[in-house]
Amino acid sequence: MSPNSFVLKGDICYSNSLTEINTVPNGYLVCVDGISKGVFQEHPADYANLPLLDYTGKLVTPGLVDLHVHAPQYAFRGLGMDLELLDWLHTHTFPEEAKYKDLAYAKKAYTRFVDDVKHGPNTRAIIFATLHKDATKLLMDLLEESGLNTMVGKVNMDRNGTTELQEESAEASARDTRAWLDETAGRYKRTKPILTPRFIPSCTDQLMHNLKEIQEEYKLPVQSHLSENQGEVAWVKELCPGSAGYGHAYDDFGLFGGDRCPTVMAHCVLSDEDESALMKKNGVYVAHCPASNTNLSSGVAPIRRFLNEGLHVGLGSDIAAGTHTSIFAAMADAIRVSKLRWRLADTSLSPLTAAEAFYLGTIGGGSFFGKVGSFAPGYECDAIVVDDTRYTAADERSLIDRLERTIYLSEDRDVVHKFVQGAQVF
Amino acid sequence: MSPNSFVLKGDICYSNSLTEINTVPNGYLVCVDGISKGVFQEHPADYANLPLLDYTGKLVTPGLVDLHVHAPQYAFRGLGMDLELLDWLHTHTFPEEAKYKDLAYAKKAYTRFVDDVKHGPNTRAIIFATLHKDATKLLMDLLEESGLNTMVGKVNMDRNGTTELQEESAEASARDTRAWLDETAGRYKRTKPILTPRFIPSCTDQLMHNLKEIQEEYKLPVQSHLSENQGEVAWVKELCPGSAGYGHAYDDFGLFGGDRCPTVMAHCVLSDEDESALMKKNGVYVAHCPASNTNLSSGVAPIRRFLNEGLHVGLGSDIAAGTHTSIFAAMADAIRVSKLRWRLADTSLSPLTAAEAFYLGTIGGGSFFGKVGSFAPGYECDAIVVDDTRYTAADERSLIDRLERTIYLSEDRDVVHKFVQGAQVF
Repeated sequence: MSPNSFVLKGDICYSNSLTEINTVPNGYLVCVDGISKGVFQEHPADYANLPLLDYTGKLVTPGLVDLHVHAPQYAFRGLGMDLELLDWLHTHTFPEEAKYKDLAYAKKAYTRFVDDVKHGPNTRAIIFATLHKDATKLLMDLLEESGLNTMVGKVNMDRNGTTELQEESAEASARDTRAWLDETAGRYKRTKPILTPRFIPSCTDQLMHNLKEIQEEYKLPVQSHLSENQGEVAWVKELCPGSAGYGHAYDDFGLFGGDRCPTVMAHCVLSDEDESALMKKNGVYVAHCPASNTNLSSGVAPIRRFLNEGLHVGLGSDIAAGTHTSIFAAMADAIRVSKLRWRLADTSLSPLTAAEAFYLGTIGGGSFFGKVGSFAPGYECDAIVVDDTRYTAADERSLIDRLERTIYLSEDRDVVHKFVQGAQVF
Repeated sequence: MSPNSFVLKGDICYSNSLTEINTVPNGYLVCVDGISKGVFQEHPADYANLPLLDYTGKLVTPGLVDLHVHAPQYAFRGLGMDLELLDWLHTHTFPEEAKYKDLAYAKKAYTRFVDDVKHGPNTRAIIFATLHKDATKLLMDLLEESGLNTMVGKVNMDRNGTTELQEESAEASARDTRAWLDETAGRYKRTKPILTPRFIPSCTDQLMHNLKEIQEEYKLPVQSHLSENQGEVAWVKELCPGSAGYGHAYDDFGLFGGDRCPTVMAHCVLSDEDESALMKKNGVYVAHCPASNTNLSSGVAPIRRFLNEGLHVGLGSDIAAGTHTSIFAAMADAIRVSKLRWRLADTSLSPLTAAEAFYLGTIGGGSFFGKVGSFAPGYECDAIVVDDTRYTAADERSLIDRLERTIYLSEDRDVVHKFVQGAQVF
């Protein structure tokens, strides 16, 4: 019997679809070899021999998925929030990221990041490290050890950085990237590399060409930033006069989705219909980062439009422009900003509901990892157990109400158990 | 020597003005008989005989002030957030408030509310109870015992409620209000009554006339709701065709500020220049409730304009349309929504800064209570001690940075000591 096989009893919730949540009070989630066999109202006789983990009275949901987070920025989250993106990058972000050249500093800071995420509600994350190869490997070591399942990128940036934070040349950046990939190849079970050009303004054309070669050679997925801020979008237009737009610029380098290049782009606040049509065509994922886009005064991405257009959308914490790693917080923020966008700017796009936000933070982002984010049969069994007694009244309400309150009120410490692909993390 | 006299050592921050924060690392706050004598860089020799409370390394700020909170709604915070105001009132709020007829229920629910607020960062609050006289007295007893300093209102509502939640007549409402005031007269040191017509749609003209008589007779301050939501504003226009606007309707009944009628109005999302001019003239306070106005899709109040006009503005949690009692959370929300309002709707009103939000949550609201919300000499000494090590890096930054991070990242449990008018609460 695999240790990753069990029956878990609790008050179980998971998304069936964008608008529908399955709730099974006092239900039984069956996990065999890390894969869900489904959720049952009665203890299924077929699995009577599996160990029973009894979390009666506690809320059980799929682990949450963070599609966009900068691990090295965790150390200064909640700071400098009175600035916009480009000023914030130069005042806070680049100086902080430069510190990760020092492995002792990196170890201290990354240990805190990984430990905090480990004990929160997220089980999966797609992560930016820094441009430093060795610090990135160290982060991957710590993540692997934590039990989380992640994709991690050594950042590429060979222009428009600072003296302390920029790679010497496209060649140096590509060489370091290959070295990082070769040195980590086969080293991890749960930690995969993802190609990570910081964003167009940080990468010369030559570097983008080099990265495309690496992407094909190593068969890597790609993450980057897209159409976040007005100043940034105008800058990209200057930098790439031959491209039809920001997304098209990535596409012109072959780094914007398609069957052999799974891609997730953070923000998309200012993506117009042309850009989203290209994303739809190429299957590019949107990492919606509502807290970040609010804190840096970027705006609110038109998520309702993206959903209507059939785009893949998940949620990102975007630490440190976002302040909290919890994707429950990102769900609440996604709902809130959609309401203000509707009220203040565009009544044609209706606000997101709690059910929709829950979907985005589980299956929505989880599908980038495969069958992840649900308890339907065949899904990889990521699960969290939440003790909601801190904020739930004694005369308790329905399971769906408890889930809504968990979205709005839970803190990381309310997560009392976590499983990733059936393996118990705590 | 009064027990409310001490010297408190710590990393001290307080607002000097709307835009300026005084920071005194390793400073000494002197409190004599509950009143601040100021903050000093060195231990002042004049007060060498006072007990020294040594909170070295911890953040010390004035206690926070919640200008608008519904105590009976605490039990269902974080629920029903997919609805707008008038639907939300009828689906969740009125049925829940009706339960407070039952004193056993009220005791259980109010105990939880008071205990949670006691252990968070707020030291002052202006509170709506329900229409029930005895449950309101019970709430006041619990608040007095907690050590918090509050104003509490038995709610008046004699129309447009439900069969379970409405007073029988204007006379019955006035009679109960007088009984509540008489029965609690002289009973408390820190808990004062405030007259609380729910809002215009809940109160007949006759009731408003009765309340004005009571206001004058008992010399009471007044709290209510103003210009929160489009449907509500349109409804008030129908109900008060003779008034020039919503605020003017309160004013026509003599319940809208002036020297002998201190008044705080929650929301003011839709207050136009005429309304804010009247508020300015009458000294009416704005209780800005950013979380609530987001969650119920009401919009964003033009706080920058109110500040430019010289209005008094403080912050409100507005539980349960807001989800968190902490006014640190309200500060972060006030900043965030001001950014989205600026970006999405009106670039003429610049976003609030962290310093401004801190002012609003301390002196801004505190001045409704008198000299409250600062450590300047002569202010009543409300103070909280925050252990920020949970979210502060070891190589710590400036005090102003730690304060900003506390606004964005603190949870109630990070507040480790609290003083109200110099009396230690914990």
